[in-house]
Formats: sequence, structure tokens, C-alpha cells
Amino acid sequence: MFKFIENGSVTSVAGIKASGIHAGIKRKRKDLALIVSDEPCNVAGTFTLNKVKAAPLLVSQELISKGGKVRAILVNSGNANACTGDRGLSDALESQKYCSEKLGIDQSEVVISSTGVIGQYMPMHIIKTGINSIVGLLNYTDGIKAAKAIMTTDLVEKSFAVKVQLTTGEVTIGGIAKGSGMIMPNMATMLSFMTTDAEIETNFLKKLLLNSVNNSFNKISVDGDTSTNDMVVLMANGVSKIKVEENTENEELFFEALQAISIELAKMIVVDGEGATKLIEIAITGCNNDDDANTIARSISNSPLVKTAIYGSDANWGRILSAAGKSGVDFDPSLVEIKFDDMVILGKNYEHEFDEEEATAILSKKEIKISINLNAGSGSSTWWTCDFTENYIKINATYRS
Amino acid sequence: MFKFIENGSVTSVAGIKASGIHAGIKRKRKDLALIVSDEPCNVAGTFTLNKVKAAPLLVSQELISKGGKVRAILVNSGNANACTGDRGLSDALESQKYCSEKLGIDQSEVVISSTGVIGQYMPMHIIKTGINSIVGLLNYTDGIKAAKAIMTTDLVEKSFAVKVQLTTGEVTIGGIAKGSGMIMPNMATMLSFMTTDAEIETNFLKKLLLNSVNNSFNKISVDGDTSTNDMVVLMANGVSKIKVEENTENEELFFEALQAISIELAKMIVVDGEGATKLIEIAITGCNNDDDANTIARSISNSPLVKTAIYGSDANWGRILSAAGKSGVDFDPSLVEIKFDDMVILGKNYEHEFDEEEATAILSKKEIKISINLNAGSGSSTWWTCDFTENYIKINATYRS
Repeated sequence: MFKFIENGSVTSVAGIKASGIHAGIKRKRKDLALIVSDEPCNVAGTFTLNKVKAAPLLVSQELISKGGKVRAILVNSGNANACTGDRGLSDALESQKYCSEKLGIDQSEVVISSTGVIGQYMPMHIIKTGINSIVGLLNYTDGIKAAKAIMTTDLVEKSFAVKVQLTTGEVTIGGIAKGSGMIMPNMATMLSFMTTDAEIETNFLKKLLLNSVNNSFNKISVDGDTSTNDMVVLMANGVSKIKVEENTENEELFFEALQAISIELAKMIVVDGEGATKLIEIAITGCNNDDDANTIARSISNSPLVKTAIYGSDANWGRILSAAGKSGVDFDPSLVEIKFDDMVILGKNYEHEFDEEEATAILSKKEIKISINLNAGSGSSTWWTCDFTENYIKINATYRS
Repeated sequence: MFKFIENGSVTSVAGIKASGIHAGIKRKRKDLALIVSDEPCNVAGTFTLNKVKAAPLLVSQELISKGGKVRAILVNSGNANACTGDRGLSDALESQKYCSEKLGIDQSEVVISSTGVIGQYMPMHIIKTGINSIVGLLNYTDGIKAAKAIMTTDLVEKSFAVKVQLTTGEVTIGGIAKGSGMIMPNMATMLSFMTTDAEIETNFLKKLLLNSVNNSFNKISVDGDTSTNDMVVLMANGVSKIKVEENTENEELFFEALQAISIELAKMIVVDGEGATKLIEIAITGCNNDDDANTIARSISNSPLVKTAIYGSDANWGRILSAAGKSGVDFDPSLVEIKFDDMVILGKNYEHEFDEEEATAILSKKEIKISINLNAGSGSSTWWTCDFTENYIKINATYRS
């Protein structure tokens, strides 16, 4: 049992302060976020699989892998501190150290993260002045300001929180995220920072996060690209004194809520995908196994031909079938059934006597569910993608990311 | 030693007739092509890896796999005869049979191929009327008409021929091809039909074709999609009486020419890619091995972020490096060097003190070479891709392929 909280965020969780400010890395918009827990937190993270990893990502990945407690997450937008070599690494460590000193905590308690332009050195004086300011502005309600400060080409901030009724009491999970281009799953693929006041042992927290990310952030696609900086971090401060342990009913209840908030954040990233006008759910069923279903869902979600057809509200089921076919998964195309929402578009043996106007009407909506049943087994996978529009091209032809 | 022939085509080869007509499958443009050899030919083919295979592709793939001789290639555009089930298969066989009867040859001597809309039955009366007409129009000069008749969203026909000086005399290779969306390599990925008057044993012809396709048609990318109908077929009629045999100097000379014509056809497909304004050569060197180089080249060639940046003439080397990084290949990013034409954009240790204006000037050209040296080994691979523009979206949002 869980319930989304109105205007929820990381600060909906007990003992979590945050803020977001304009430090000056970007010309106008907010560009520095800080999330701080009153109590030391167990922490779990997932990180980009890109071989090119940004300096702050390397620092945070190592820190989190050590299994120690953390207290803070410092994030800037406007500069990725990626491909910046030794100087980038020392800049990252300096930011971390400076922030820990201002907070009066240990350097190893500060997770750091950056997003923005690749290949430029961090303006360290701006970062430091920004840290000086933001530390004084931290409070128990400004999670949404942090959500705004981590945006790059995002048009809206992404922030949610859920109250979860466990068998032993109530806990809260809050989260913020940013997209919006360079989204293509495979481990963490964008930024998301989540907090909870549940008490969860570190290794188990990691397992919960990985499973949740695999069904949410790892199943979305905007353009098939994967960034150098992407990570998802979940901090558990235990302030509620309510435990979530493995193989208990609480595990199930907590995971369900964690997955729900992760999926909402992930879907919001897709909705806010660069140039996107539609959210498309790709639901694969009837595969030999879940892995095959996932491969097919990914192939369809990443197909420019499928994504442009949906942009044009064109009921081009041939492109969907063809995108499944090029995935490398073996299946019998003549058994495939395709539905748009509840309307059958393709039946077995390529039957497709559907009403074109009705199909166009469905595809003209803001949210569309495309179901593909391979009628071969019980494997399934659901992905979320967006349409591909002229605006994606415009944004990316000129933006120096 | 080889030389391209002005206005060359499949009919530049001795003993090859062809034509291309408007049969009526499409509203206005030519839509039916026929290539016929006076003498029976050895034949080799490569076919799409898409699990969804069009009926004519299945028929031709089986026919060619049997190793027998062929005399003709019948191709229509406007209708792919894909996802058409049993009726599609019987339509394909009927076209093949009808064509063979009109030519007075065996049904097994006719290769058939289709491209166009998926999921619609072939208008058999139009095909038959078309065959009746085209058989009477065949001649030794109209290869370019055939090239025009296989076009779909292509803006220009693709047709070349080369004269090859072998140690034992001169032979000719001619070829036509069509693109232009749904191009993403992995075995054959578009249509191309080639002819030669050299005398080449079937298994060896297959080896030559496969190697040539791997360095040309399999190394181009327009949008990362792979079609249900794509194939490359090479017919050798032996009319020159000049043999090309394995492990001879002639092999080397012939292969060099076959690869050159294949690369020219492949590059022309990229240049004519849907909405493309620029041809981009992606040359990877210094990899641990050729496979890794190929994987990295593919990843960069297919990256929407790289392709949109080049459209915007934005010297965004970070996206190139990031696209290499997401390929799954292990490498040290700090050793990577990137050049645009002869200009160093990125040196080792992420050095990038280049002149932005000069870089923009290079990226504003119609043809750009991007070289990426990983400085790790001697593996290399060259791909060709195009930029990604608003016109790609426009064409594909409305075209029912």
C-alpha cells in the first residue's frame, strides 16, 4: 500500500534537507543542488555503463562501492566535468572536500554528481561560492528546488514522493530526476537521487535499487544514447526506525513503492524527452523468456522509424514488426499480434483489417499503449519511449552538450 | 587496376540487358525493373538478418542457396510483399513463374525482389501487365532505367560500372542500388544488384561478394533500422571468358574493383539518406582489433547525438567520444585522438585547444572525414554515415513504408 504525496520530493522524507540555487555555471537557470540528511545514511547507486566516465561519477562510484555511510549529495548542472582528465578529477575531489567542510562532515560522506557540457573544466570559484550560499539555504521543504537545479534541456522538474504503509508503520520515499536527451538504458542512464527514512541494510538497499532501476530507468528510451555522467543514488537514513528486511512482507511493500516512484520519474523523463510530444508504452508479452522480451522492447523503443511514424500518427504496424525482427531474437512473425490501446491492429497471419481513422485517433493521443504478443511463451517486458520529432533535431543540432 | 565508366550500370557488362518501367504499382514513378543475362550466370547473394523476411526475399534466398545458375532479376518498388503470409508467398512465386515464361527460361533462373510498403498484397494484374511490357523493352543500354525503377524515397538513382584490367584481359562490373531510409548494416541492408562478365565459380563468387559487402553496404548507417527486404545479388555470366580464381593476382585485382563499386554505391545510399545533407566518413584506427573498431564505428555512425551535432556543424567531440564509450568496447578514453579532416580536435589527455571557427568550417562541408585513433593497437574500420535532419523526421512521419 502506497500513496503519492502532492508536490512530493526528496525532502518529503523525514530528516532530509535540500536546496537548489543559481550559482552561475549557467547563465540564468538554477545549476547547483544539495541534498543533506541529518543522520548518516546507508546508500546504494547504479552508474552508467559508458566507458567514458565523468570525474564526479568515478569519485561517487568508488565512494559508494566502499559501503560506508553518506550524508550529502552535491549536484551541479551546466558542466559535466567529463573528459577533463586529471584536472577534472582533482576538481571533483576539491568540490567534494569543500562541500564536506562547509557541512562539517567527512569528505567520504559527500556523493557528487555533474551534468552538462562535456570537455570543459569546472569553474571552481563559482562552485565554491555556490556551496557557500546553498549550505545556508538548506531546509526541510525545498526538494523541488533541487529538482530544478539538476535540469539541463529538461522543460519541467521531475520530483515525486510516496508514503508507504508497511506492516510495522509508515515510511516515505522521495526522488528527483533529470533527463532528457542521451537517454538509453542499460544500467543507470540519467540522474536520479532518491531518499527514504526506512532503515535498510546497505547490501539489501543495493539489491532493491538495482531491481527497481531495471524495471524503470533501464526501460526507457529517448534517443538510444547513453551519457558519461548518469547515475541513480538512493540514501536511506533510518530516521523512521522502521526496518525493511529481506524476505519479509515489508520488502514486498517497500519494493512496490520504490518501483512505482522510479517508474513515475522514468516516464516523466520520457514525456520530457527532447522534442517529444507523446509517451508510448511498449508492452511485450508471449516471448520465450523475459530477456528476449526486453531485447524486442528495446529494439522497438529505439527505432527511429517507429518513433517518427507515431509522431505522424501513422498506424504503420510493419515498422513495429520489422523493429522486432531486427532485434536478433528468434520468433515467428506470423504469430505476432499488435494492439494500439485496446484496438487490434495486427492479428495472427498478418491479418490487419482495422479502421485506419480509429487507429490514427489513438495515435494522436498524448499517451499510447502498444502491446505486442508473440504468442510463443510467457516472457514479458514493458518499456517507455517517446516520439521522434523535428524539435529533437533542432535542440540537438545546436546544443553543445 | 580499374576505372569507373561514365554513366555506367549493370548493362555496361557484356551480355546483360535491362529496363525499368512504370507498371502502375506507384502512382507516377517507375516501379518495375528487369535485368536479364543472355547466358546463364553463377550467382551470389547476401540477405537481411531481420527475422521478418519478405516473401520474395525468402524465395530468392532459397533459390540462390541451391547454387544453380540464374538468368534474370525481377524487382518491383512500391510494394514490399512483406508480412503478407501464404498469399504473399504464392504471389511471389507466381511473379517469378510468369516472368520466366515470358522470358522463355526456367522459373529457378529468376531472382525476385521487392521494396516498398509492408503488409499489402501485391497487385498481381499490374505486375503481370508490367512483365508483359518490360520483356519487350529490354536492351543492352538501359541499366539506369532499372536503377530508377527500384527507387523508393531515393532522390537519385544509384548506378555505376567499372572496367577492371586483369592479368589475362579486361572484365566489367556493373551495379545499381537503392536506399534510403531503414539503412543499418549487418549483412545486406538495402537493395543492390550487380553484374559481371568475369568467369567465377559460384562458391568463390559468394566469398568475394560477402567480403565486399562487409566493407561497404555493411558499414553504412542512415537511421539504424534494418528492413525486411534487403539483399545484394551479384550475377557472373562469364561472357568475357576471363577467369577470376582464388589465390591469384586476378582475385586481388577483381576484388579491389568489386569493393570500389560497392563502396561507391554504399556511399551514394548514405548521401541520399532520408533528409541527409552531409556524407560523413568515420575512420577508426588504433583499436585492439578490427571487430572492436567496427563496433565503435557503428556506435558513432548510429548515434543521433553525433548525427544532429554534425547537422548543426557543431564540433561536439564529447558526443563522439561518448558514442565510442557506449559501444561496449573497452578502451582508455584519455588516449583517444579525434580529427576532423586533417585538423586535430582532440589530443591525448583530452587536449582540445582547437579553433572553433575552423572546425565549424570543416563541418559545414558536404563531405567530412572524422578520424578517431584509440592508440591501443592496429585494429581499424571505416564506416559512412549522414547527418540527421528535420527532413528525416518529416519524410518518415508521413511515409507509409
